[in-house]
Amino acid sequence: MKFTCQKQKLLEGISIVQKAITGKSTMSVLEGIYLHCVNNNLVLIGSDMDVSIETNIDVDVKEEGSIVIDAKIFSEIIRKLPNSEIEIETMQNETIQITCEKSVFNVVYMKAEEFPELPTVNEGEEVTVPQNILKSMIKATSFAIAQDETRPILQGILFEIKDKNINLVALDGYRLAIKSEYIDSDLEKDVVIPGKTLNEVSKILEDSEDLVKITFTKNHILFSLEKTRVISRLLEGKFVNYKSLLPEEHKLEVLVDKQEFQNGIERASLMAKDGNNNLVKFEVEDESIIISSNSQLGKVREEVTINLQGEKIQIAFNSRYLLDVLKNLDEEEIVLEMTSSVSPCIIKGKEVDNYRYLVLPVRLIR
Amino acid sequence: MKFTCQKQKLLEGISIVQKAITGKSTMSVLEGIYLHCVNNNLVLIGSDMDVSIETNIDVDVKEEGSIVIDAKIFSEIIRKLPNSEIEIETMQNETIQITCEKSVFNVVYMKAEEFPELPTVNEGEEVTVPQNILKSMIKATSFAIAQDETRPILQGILFEIKDKNINLVALDGYRLAIKSEYIDSDLEKDVVIPGKTLNEVSKILEDSEDLVKITFTKNHILFSLEKTRVISRLLEGKFVNYKSLLPEEHKLEVLVDKQEFQNGIERASLMAKDGNNNLVKFEVEDESIIISSNSQLGKVREEVTINLQGEKIQIAFNSRYLLDVLKNLDEEEIVLEMTSSVSPCIIKGKEVDNYRYLVLPVRLIR
Repeated sequence: MKFTCQKQKLLEGISIVQKAITGKSTMSVLEGIYLHCVNNNLVLIGSDMDVSIETNIDVDVKEEGSIVIDAKIFSEIIRKLPNSEIEIETMQNETIQITCEKSVFNVVYMKAEEFPELPTVNEGEEVTVPQNILKSMIKATSFAIAQDETRPILQGILFEIKDKNINLVALDGYRLAIKSEYIDSDLEKDVVIPGKTLNEVSKILEDSEDLVKITFTKNHILFSLEKTRVISRLLEGKFVNYKSLLPEEHKLEVLVDKQEFQNGIERASLMAKDGNNNLVKFEVEDESIIISSNSQLGKVREEVTINLQGEKIQIAFNSRYLLDVLKNLDEEEIVLEMTSSVSPCIIKGKEVDNYRYLVLPVRLIR
Repeated sequence: MKFTCQKQKLLEGISIVQKAITGKSTMSVLEGIYLHCVNNNLVLIGSDMDVSIETNIDVDVKEEGSIVIDAKIFSEIIRKLPNSEIEIETMQNETIQITCEKSVFNVVYMKAEEFPELPTVNEGEEVTVPQNILKSMIKATSFAIAQDETRPILQGILFEIKDKNINLVALDGYRLAIKSEYIDSDLEKDVVIPGKTLNEVSKILEDSEDLVKITFTKNHILFSLEKTRVISRLLEGKFVNYKSLLPEEHKLEVLVDKQEFQNGIERASLMAKDGNNNLVKFEVEDESIIISSNSQLGKVREEVTINLQGEKIQIAFNSRYLLDVLKNLDEEEIVLEMTSSVSPCIIKGKEVDNYRYLVLPVRLIR
């Protein structure tokens, strides 16, 4: 194997495929990046078996071939080299020689045959979505996946295509996030993708309207960008019937400035940390919400101006579940829909109807 | 105690005195900030007994008094409050009430009497130095203090005033850094200041020519800025006679571009990490230095253009001791003075003569 390429391009390729390399595998070859050069193209692959990322860069191939090289040391070397042309060549003793201006590295490589084959995804059902849309859907839901491993299916995000809509749903037993977008496809689909995978996909997606093609097979999902492909296994099992969790009606509506609400809760939660499970109390009045909290450190009272439609109410929440969604919402004004102090609360944007966040209140012993 | 002040000013004061609060003391009152308000002035003090920082801000005092409040919670609250006027008032039940717009916090405080008294530094021998000069002197030397605790005196920096010069010296058994500046004073002085203290002082100093006044007493040193004072205890014991360590002559001189030299060593050290004590070898030729290193990961060869006066030489170093100084030197071109592969190497700027860094080579078994 022998090729030359520009440092910056190679570094970009490395940093894309590195996102799949978690270092948690017991196979040392999975701590490496697979390099394969043919036809003036260098294929780079990183994988942890659950998710694999492949990207392609233009290089000047002088001799075709494939190797695997430790991702950490390879990326450190390339990052530190001058911004210039790099030549990479396999040598005797199973080393590659990396040359750039007056620097020459000889680094041990692993055999390409040891690298596991990627799942073949030649055909399958397909949809396409603008990258920025998919990116914002992942951002709006992925924080709500379960962190504990007791129900593995909840560590995934439901990816549902139905009635010309694409829905992403995540929930963890205390809250649920659902984001929907129109899609011009009659496909009906219902798979669960590991949350970790979608977070990595999200980092690769750009804030542009360029399309990402999504291909479904029986056990895998494939995201294809211009030069990059991400393949992930799907989670097995049935996702929770989330629709049954969404309340059909509500008794009161609160309209509030998102940033003021978030600031008030952030401050109140400062007093709710110490052995208090982030508990903050809300007294919903006609023109304001009083947010309060106390612990052995002291107590706090915040007042936020609102517009209330319906009856006054007292209700309490784990502030973390509220702050998670408020930090991820781009709306200026939001609406809270509530029914009682023991019923779920729905949070959504005032202007948009394609996002809903459900959070369960904390019951207070009086 | 009752006063009002602007949030931003209070926050600046807190962040200055917090630098002295290490949280390592067994006295819980030292996790607090001492607040004392009198005559439209608020004094804030943070201390870990070794070093104390006091700063003053203008406030509108309505009732004089003093308290101590937990630094962490106090700074978090003030940071999160709106950018507006804050009122702070002591209440019943040993709490202070912090009010800002629609936020009201009640936080438990500690009694001011529990806070240890600062060492009184009314009189002593004094010098003044521009802040930017002192800041750059600390930057150029403090990285070289000993990290281990076997010889406590080496965890300090020698602060020597002699022959109208102020010298800062740090060493750790493998390298020595010395920076000197002219001072218009006939004082002769010779104290050792904990390195930790000087690093904190350095963060408070500004890149301006405003003066800092330095006062020496028997056991303490005091740095006085316009609104802020830092008092540190001195280390006991005699510092190493550093002058006897500096070689009087050398046999060869290397002139090299600092950044190219640093880049070459940084890359070479990538291959020197793995069980190799950061060992990098230098072959000093007439017009270049060949830097090389190897480990089980592979090997590297770097070439850096130089100008040599004297004989060729082969010598090896711990790359960390070289990178530490190169990262902290602002010179474009540097000079290395060497005599043999087992004698100390001196590194200094080409243009300036007030900084010298001595580093011991690593002996190679051939």
